[in-house]
Amino acid sequence: MRITIKDIAADTGLSVTSVSLILNGKAKKIPRRTKDLVFNSAEKLGYRPNQLAVGLVKKQTKTLGLVISDIRNLFFATLAKGVEDECHRNGWAMILCNTNDVHQRDIEYIKLLSDKGVDGILYCMSFDTQLEMAKKCCSLMESLQIPFVMIDRYFECLNYTSVIVDHKLGGYLATKHLIELGHKRIACVTGPLHLDDSINRLKGYRQALTEHGLDYDSDIIYEGRYSIDSGSNAMESLYGKDFTAIFAFNDMTALGVVSQAKKLNVKIPEELALVGYDDIYFTEIMENPLTTIHQPVYEMGIEGTKKLLSVINGEDSTEKYVIFAPRLVVRKSSVV
Amino acid sequence: MRITIKDIAADTGLSVTSVSLILNGKAKKIPRRTKDLVFNSAEKLGYRPNQLAVGLVKKQTKTLGLVISDIRNLFFATLAKGVEDECHRNGWAMILCNTNDVHQRDIEYIKLLSDKGVDGILYCMSFDTQLEMAKKCCSLMESLQIPFVMIDRYFECLNYTSVIVDHKLGGYLATKHLIELGHKRIACVTGPLHLDDSINRLKGYRQALTEHGLDYDSDIIYEGRYSIDSGSNAMESLYGKDFTAIFAFNDMTALGVVSQAKKLNVKIPEELALVGYDDIYFTEIMENPLTTIHQPVYEMGIEGTKKLLSVINGEDSTEKYVIFAPRLVVRKSSVV
Repeated sequence: MRITIKDIAADTGLSVTSVSLILNGKAKKIPRRTKDLVFNSAEKLGYRPNQLAVGLVKKQTKTLGLVISDIRNLFFATLAKGVEDECHRNGWAMILCNTNDVHQRDIEYIKLLSDKGVDGILYCMSFDTQLEMAKKCCSLMESLQIPFVMIDRYFECLNYTSVIVDHKLGGYLATKHLIELGHKRIACVTGPLHLDDSINRLKGYRQALTEHGLDYDSDIIYEGRYSIDSGSNAMESLYGKDFTAIFAFNDMTALGVVSQAKKLNVKIPEELALVGYDDIYFTEIMENPLTTIHQPVYEMGIEGTKKLLSVINGEDSTEKYVIFAPRLVVRKSSVV
Repeated sequence: MRITIKDIAADTGLSVTSVSLILNGKAKKIPRRTKDLVFNSAEKLGYRPNQLAVGLVKKQTKTLGLVISDIRNLFFATLAKGVEDECHRNGWAMILCNTNDVHQRDIEYIKLLSDKGVDGILYCMSFDTQLEMAKKCCSLMESLQIPFVMIDRYFECLNYTSVIVDHKLGGYLATKHLIELGHKRIACVTGPLHLDDSINRLKGYRQALTEHGLDYDSDIIYEGRYSIDSGSNAMESLYGKDFTAIFAFNDMTALGVVSQAKKLNVKIPEELALVGYDDIYFTEIMENPLTTIHQPVYEMGIEGTKKLLSVINGEDSTEKYVIFAPRLVVRKSSVV
C-alpha cells in the first residue's frame, strides 16, 4: 500500500495531526528535532504527498492538457517537446491528446481533460474545425472553467489568447523568394482553406504576386490537407498545367510533392522549384534539402506554456497574442 | 466557478445529499421523476463529476504515464500515438514524459507521475541506464506502488513485465540480407552497448556472420547513440576502413550515415549498401528509400497499454513478455 502520514505517525510515535502539521509546514512551535524525526521518517519510508488530495484542497493539479492533431507529425512532436520541457521546469505534467484532426475528438478531449482536473489546456484545433465548431469548443472550455490558450491554429475573430506565427508574412516570404528566382507561374498546395493559418499564407502569396505585377490563377491552387498524401495528390493533379514552381503550405505536403515528382520523373529543382513551410527536422537531410519557411515551433511550445501558466495564475494582462515571425531558409530545392 | 452538486441542489430545490445519491446511482427509493430532474439539471448546467474526488475514493485516476527519451524521435512519436489511441479507447489519459535520455530524469518523472496519482507507467528507460540504475528505477516504482510495464528497452535479467521486439532476430535478418547480396565486410553502427536491445542486435549480427563463415572484426564496429549525429560521426570515423556495407542499429543513425556519405561523395547503394532499423515514417520517402528492419512500433504502443491496464486491474497472469517479431523491408539503400 501507498505510504501515508499514518505510517509516519506509527514509525515516529507521533500523532497523525503533528505529522500532518509538520509536513505541511504549519508546525511553528514544534521543536526542530521532532520535525527532523518526521522528515527523516518520510524520506526513509518513501512518503510522497497525495497530490490528488492536495489538488482537491488547492484546486490545482499542476497538470495541463495539450490537444493536437497527431504526434507523429514532427511539427506537433516538436511543439509537444517545447511544452513538456517547460512543464518539467515548473514541476507540471502534460497530458497529450491526439485528435487525428477530427473535431468530435476535440470535444471529447476537452471533457476528458476536465474530468482529469487539468488546470489549463493548450489547444490546437483539429483542422476540420469551422468557425462555429471552434466557438463551441471554446465555449465548452469556458463553461468548464478551464483556462486555455490557442496555439498555432486560431480564428482571429474569436479574439482568444493565442500563440501564433505571422503566416501572411511566411506566405509572402516564400512567394517573393520564388519570384526573385524568376518564376512567374507558382502553384500552391494549400492547407484547408477555412483555417486562418492557411488563409493567411495564401494572402501573403497573393500580396507577393500583386507587388510584382503577377496575376493570381486559381487553376494552379490546390487545396490540400497538410499531409504527405495530399502533396502527392496535388502534384499528380497539377502535373501538365503551366507552372515552374510550387509553394507547399507545409513540409509534409512538400515531401508528398517530392515523392510524386520522382515518380513523374520531374527533377527538383531543375524542372520544378519547391518551397515548403515549417522547417521540420528532416527537411535539412533530404536529397535536395528543402527550402522552407522556418517556424520556431519548439519556442512556440515554450511560450505557449508560459502564457497558459500565466493565464492560470491570473497574471495575464492585456497581451492577447504572442506572434512569432517566420523566416525563409534557402536550401537546394528552390535554387538550381 | 466549476459547477458542483451544490449548484444542482440549488437549481432543483433538492438537498445536496439527494443530488449526490442520485448522481452516484445510490438512490433506489427516489422516484424516477426526481432523478430525471437532477440529470436534466446536471446536463443543463454542464456538470462534470470531480474526478479528483472520484480518484481519491476509488484510488484510480485512469491516467497513465509514458516515459520515453524524446518525442521528436519518430520511433517514440509512433509509440506514443499507439499508447494514446489505446488510452482514448478506454477513457484513460496519458501523461507524456521526455527524459532526454538522462537517467536522473527517469527518477524525477517517476516521482512526478506518482505525485500526479497515475495508475501505472509505461517505462522506456533512458539509454544511459546501466543495470544498477534500472534496478533503482524499478524498485522506486515498486516502493511507490505503481504498476509498470517496460517497453522497448529492458534488461532480460530483471524479469519485469515487458513489451519488446526480438532484436537478435532483427540483427540477424539485417546482416543475412547484406551477406546474401555478397557483402563480406559489414560495418555496424550500434546503439549504446550496455543496453540489451543493442546487445541483441549485435548478437544477431554475429550469428549471421558465423553461419556464413565470416569473421567478426571489432575494428568496423562503431558504438553510436541511436542519433543522427552519431551516424554522421560513425561514417566519418569508419571512412577509409575496409567495408562495403553498413548496418545501422536505428534509422536515425542511418540518416546520419546518409548525410555524411553525401558529404564524402560515397554513393549509396552503389559504393555502400546501407540497412537501418525501425522503419520510421521517413525512410520510405528518402531519395534512396532505406532498407530497414520494421518494428511494429504503433502496435507495441497498443499492446503495451493493454498489458499495463491488465496489470493495473490485477488481471495479469503468467505472461511476462510480449515479444514482437521484426521483419526485413528491402528498399533501395541496399540493392544496386
